[in-house]
Amino acid sequence: MDSSTPEDEPTAFDPSVGGSMADRSADEAQRAAELAAAVDPTGLVQRTLLDRVGSPEALKSLDRSELPALCDELRSFLLDTVQATGGHLGSNLGVVELTVALHWVYDFGRDHIVLDTSHQSYPHKILTGRKDRFGSLRQTGGLCGFTNPHESPFDLFHLGHAGTSISLGVGLAIASASRHPDEDPNLRPQAVAVIGDASLGAGVAFEALNHAGARGERMLVVLNDNEWSIAQSVGALARYLSRIRTNRTLMRARQEIGNLIASIPVIGDKVDRTLDQVREVLRHAIISGHVFEELGVRYVGPLDGHDVLLLVDQLEKIRQLDGCILLHTLTQKGKGHPDASEHPERVHAAKPPNSIVKPAEAQARYTRESEKVLATAAQRCGTTLDSGISYTQAFGDAVLECARGDLRVHAITAGMPSGTGLGGFSKEFPTRFHDVGITEQHGIAMAAGMAKGGLRPIVAVYSTFLQRGYDQVFQEVALQELPVVFAMDRAGLVGQDGPTHNGVFDIAFQRIFPGFTLCAPRDATDMRRMLASALELDGPVGLRYPRGSCPGHERITESERAPMVPGRAEVLLDGQDVAVWAYGALVSEAILAAERLRERDIHITVVDARYAKPLDEELLSKHLRQHRTLITLEEHQRAGGFGSAVLEAQSRIGERACHVRTLGVPDAYQEHRTQREEQLAHCGLDAAGLERIVSTALRAVKRS
Amino acid sequence: MDSSTPEDEPTAFDPSVGGSMADRSADEAQRAAELAAAVDPTGLVQRTLLDRVGSPEALKSLDRSELPALCDELRSFLLDTVQATGGHLGSNLGVVELTVALHWVYDFGRDHIVLDTSHQSYPHKILTGRKDRFGSLRQTGGLCGFTNPHESPFDLFHLGHAGTSISLGVGLAIASASRHPDEDPNLRPQAVAVIGDASLGAGVAFEALNHAGARGERMLVVLNDNEWSIAQSVGALARYLSRIRTNRTLMRARQEIGNLIASIPVIGDKVDRTLDQVREVLRHAIISGHVFEELGVRYVGPLDGHDVLLLVDQLEKIRQLDGCILLHTLTQKGKGHPDASEHPERVHAAKPPNSIVKPAEAQARYTRESEKVLATAAQRCGTTLDSGISYTQAFGDAVLECARGDLRVHAITAGMPSGTGLGGFSKEFPTRFHDVGITEQHGIAMAAGMAKGGLRPIVAVYSTFLQRGYDQVFQEVALQELPVVFAMDRAGLVGQDGPTHNGVFDIAFQRIFPGFTLCAPRDATDMRRMLASALELDGPVGLRYPRGSCPGHERITESERAPMVPGRAEVLLDGQDVAVWAYGALVSEAILAAERLRERDIHITVVDARYAKPLDEELLSKHLRQHRTLITLEEHQRAGGFGSAVLEAQSRIGERACHVRTLGVPDAYQEHRTQREEQLAHCGLDAAGLERIVSTALRAVKRS
Repeated sequence: MDSSTPEDEPTAFDPSVGGSMADRSADEAQRAAELAAAVDPTGLVQRTLLDRVGSPEALKSLDRSELPALCDELRSFLLDTVQATGGHLGSNLGVVELTVALHWVYDFGRDHIVLDTSHQSYPHKILTGRKDRFGSLRQTGGLCGFTNPHESPFDLFHLGHAGTSISLGVGLAIASASRHPDEDPNLRPQAVAVIGDASLGAGVAFEALNHAGARGERMLVVLNDNEWSIAQSVGALARYLSRIRTNRTLMRARQEIGNLIASIPVIGDKVDRTLDQVREVLRHAIISGHVFEELGVRYVGPLDGHDVLLLVDQLEKIRQLDGCILLHTLTQKGKGHPDASEHPERVHAAKPPNSIVKPAEAQARYTRESEKVLATAAQRCGTTLDSGISYTQAFGDAVLECARGDLRVHAITAGMPSGTGLGGFSKEFPTRFHDVGITEQHGIAMAAGMAKGGLRPIVAVYSTFLQRGYDQVFQEVALQELPVVFAMDRAGLVGQDGPTHNGVFDIAFQRIFPGFTLCAPRDATDMRRMLASALELDGPVGLRYPRGSCPGHERITESERAPMVPGRAEVLLDGQDVAVWAYGALVSEAILAAERLRERDIHITVVDARYAKPLDEELLSKHLRQHRTLITLEEHQRAGGFGSAVLEAQSRIGERACHVRTLGVPDAYQEHRTQREEQLAHCGLDAAGLERIVSTALRAVKRS
Repeated sequence: MDSSTPEDEPTAFDPSVGGSMADRSADEAQRAAELAAAVDPTGLVQRTLLDRVGSPEALKSLDRSELPALCDELRSFLLDTVQATGGHLGSNLGVVELTVALHWVYDFGRDHIVLDTSHQSYPHKILTGRKDRFGSLRQTGGLCGFTNPHESPFDLFHLGHAGTSISLGVGLAIASASRHPDEDPNLRPQAVAVIGDASLGAGVAFEALNHAGARGERMLVVLNDNEWSIAQSVGALARYLSRIRTNRTLMRARQEIGNLIASIPVIGDKVDRTLDQVREVLRHAIISGHVFEELGVRYVGPLDGHDVLLLVDQLEKIRQLDGCILLHTLTQKGKGHPDASEHPERVHAAKPPNSIVKPAEAQARYTRESEKVLATAAQRCGTTLDSGISYTQAFGDAVLECARGDLRVHAITAGMPSGTGLGGFSKEFPTRFHDVGITEQHGIAMAAGMAKGGLRPIVAVYSTFLQRGYDQVFQEVALQELPVVFAMDRAGLVGQDGPTHNGVFDIAFQRIFPGFTLCAPRDATDMRRMLASALELDGPVGLRYPRGSCPGHERITESERAPMVPGRAEVLLDGQDVAVWAYGALVSEAILAAERLRERDIHITVVDARYAKPLDEELLSKHLRQHRTLITLEEHQRAGGFGSAVLEAQSRIGERACHVRTLGVPDAYQEHRTQREEQLAHCGLDAAGLERIVSTALRAVKRS
């Protein structure tokens, strides 16, 4: 999709931000301040204008002629800081002039600005009083990588999914007209939506333009056209915009020629119609030459989006116009970055240097502290706890292996070929690889058509973006009982991207559809087995895995290479009193907790549930009889998830003497943190949290 | 949205199709046969051609010159039968010629046809061997009102939600090319999508055209342009299509003039550019005059969609063309119906005469059999069990009352102003009423913008169609904690429309979002109180109510008129051993069951849960202590619903001695039946089903 995080890399635990939950906020504030100080090298660089611009009012106090210099300073600040903090670099370098011009012309204390997807919000943040905190970007307790109302009144929405800014703008425009009915429209608060060319291909953006054009509500849509989403934009609209770009002379000529129509002489006496009619035909042809104009939206452009004074001039005129205006600006993603022209995709997101994200002690978890414990655990369970590859890559490997053996396997992505691990697939099977752009609705329905036509499509998508095509998951796939595999990456907590990107709802929203199979591999071996088994099923499958490092790249016994049986769980450790049923990636946390408890001579049962639907009710029934407490563990909201499925099964089965406790993400949005592992710890979903719960449960059992 | 059912009317129970589940299928088949025989008056009319066309092969055996007469017979058959059976009449009368022509030119035993939304599938059904069963349309055990693969191999998908046919077609086209790589493209199976002008405004349709245009996959999109969805089409695209319609001469002129460009002499020496450049400008202006052409889709039309021979001619040519073709046909909704020209909206769906849907004995439930029981129940609970108005109307009344007192209240619908009960609102508050067309994604995001701007928007939507804007429910509304009320009509089982329209997932898919309030009124009084209370909250609210008759139009005590407290349940009857916690409309079933049990001297507790989120955990905790069994009752899938919320609460609270049993829709898609009440009975969710469960529970308690 749109706002991918920096590429997956083995994540690591940072003990410096651990500790109890109670003292976390003080720690976090402290750490954020340190980070900001540590990585902000701006003290070394003279940025006399930028240093004066602590607010939009201060910006307006500059002389218009100073704006180009301000833009240069802003760009150099971004280059210095974002390369240190990590984050979305390219898109922000591209909107420096646009952001300055918008804040110069509009008053966003009163007017409304909506940045689509909002990964291009850094200049906006810097101009609205957040420059000094910028070094804390995307870190625990620091600035959010997207607009966020909790951070600033200049951020209206917390956005990370693409395409909705125009709709939000239409709503704001309606509210403005409704709440200021008697005011001069020029003085009413105005709505501005800034949207990229790739996001414009999302259906919701078209729906909104279609509505805005018909209503004629006064608002501005800025099309920030940089020809790139994360990968290159796809679709006919992208080609259309490209024609506009390459035909700038032509477009200008066309506009001028419109004025000359009247002087066209008769075209020849072969034509049996009047001069007036010919004129009308040509006039219509010329004014209707534009998709946007056809939709009732007034088109202005294309303009050079890096000419700040030109932008200011145009925006000052546009601000006085009625109706919905689309301003088409041409920008360069990564403008000012040395790699920008040749490798724009490399400039999309900067990886932070290891010194920031992985402090020296970060590796401790899998090396020193519990090395022996883990080695033992790995041996006992026939798995390893760190394979050095990400779940994304494990999926990428698995899908290649499956596709090599089965011509029917096609892969679909909605604008995220590399983020979803399909880079290798796209190279090896270009005709079986389909990047539909940021159009999950279409991609999923298309997959249904492909499945009906006898193929075995895999939709590789971030869990949170699957929500964008939810009705197609229901009607086109589930209701038809079609064999489409949803490979859901980033299913769980995602660290720096925060709540717009956490994938913590998918079990619940798919589990309710009859006929769906839901599974989650605990390691790379099971990824391959599960995917292979999913491709054999005659109905839809949701296969989920999180961001981060994937354990157990290879297990070797014969049975472990056998196909996976849907609805069959695996017992990893046999114990007593307490059973832990873990789902997916958190199985490794359960193993770790069990090993630690074993050192205290406490022996718990550990199950890799494997399938949330169908559940292994036979094994569950047995375990409910054999244990006093059964704990479920999942990287998903507690409500409606895997744990709820277990509770529902217990209600049917009986065996109510066993207390089922469900561990999952609590009923609150989880803010961004530097590491996914911190979020897991915060939610009590790591080995330490599980150990605490088991201890509590055992004390309760002893008391009773 | 798109395929509304006939207007709500008080539904009635038909004992003739009741009985145990075991003998149901025999009963149903029998009944369907009787219905077909009873309402099919075709024996009386001479339809010599139609009678010979029992399959697409038989159609092809007709002489081309016979097609117009066949169309007339088909139209007269539709008029006769659909007015008797009820169902979508207008859209089907509009596609008679188109369907005949498509089946004449293509071979849908091999080629693929996808009918968008598929309420216009009746002629297709009749031509593919289902004419003799047509009298059973939409009845229990009879033909489905939409395409349905369980019914015929000519029906590829079971569709009822709009906009996805082009995506499905693209998928089928990809599969065809992929599975027949070496075959002549003219001989490969081809994909045809038929989509209405209103559905084309759905974002997913735009996404698909955008992709199809860029890929150039060989396929045909037929734009069936009748200027109407259910209400009149809205949006700029609709205006654009209207311009094409009115400018047919102009369009033709424009095409011809393109060929004459070369003969244009120099335009005057004022223009400083070469003749070639001028020619290029004009050529570009003319070929790019079309939105569809700009998207890379080849446009053919507009054609008279009622000229079957013209359609056949064009389709024969189109079938040989490469790339994605859009054939624009102009049709008249309800063509041939006496009301069609003046009142097309009346012809959308025919209400069946009472004799079909409501057999004489149907009223029994609320009149004879349990008259006394019900009167007593009503008195005891301060409610009545039948108000004579639908839930839809109760909502319509409530929203009017709320809007009169609060200028901030706006109402939004996605193309269903009357189906959602907003007819009165749109008349009284035209500037606060927003019909966005079939664009739920946009409508919901727009509502978020309005809420951010200080308004209190109510999105009135069928539960199942809310899925179409699911990601906007998440990101734009829930994550921002904005006060948007989702008034979800048809939340539950819907009778004749079947599984595409059942609204049985909404509790689960909203309950997982932090900060959401979920509620359901048991009657019209609570509808008003809940809506008023919802509009006071500072976060999102999902308010659900089903299709059908709404109990208790007016209750009168002071406390009953007080605002509703979120998270507070209401105890209606105090009993022992067994407590029933019912949610929403099924409270009346619980009351009825309790009254019947009371006659057997069994006294159960009945609770109107009111809120699924937040749950009344205090009362629940008390009831778990006081009862051996607690039964939850909801018109929603069992998985993840209200019952699961109760199980999750019990897991937290403890009090595990009480057996919580959750009653809801089982894990299977519920097929259409003549009445919602039959579906409730089939799922065991009516009073009789509840009575059985209570009896079983009591026997179990006695044994233990």
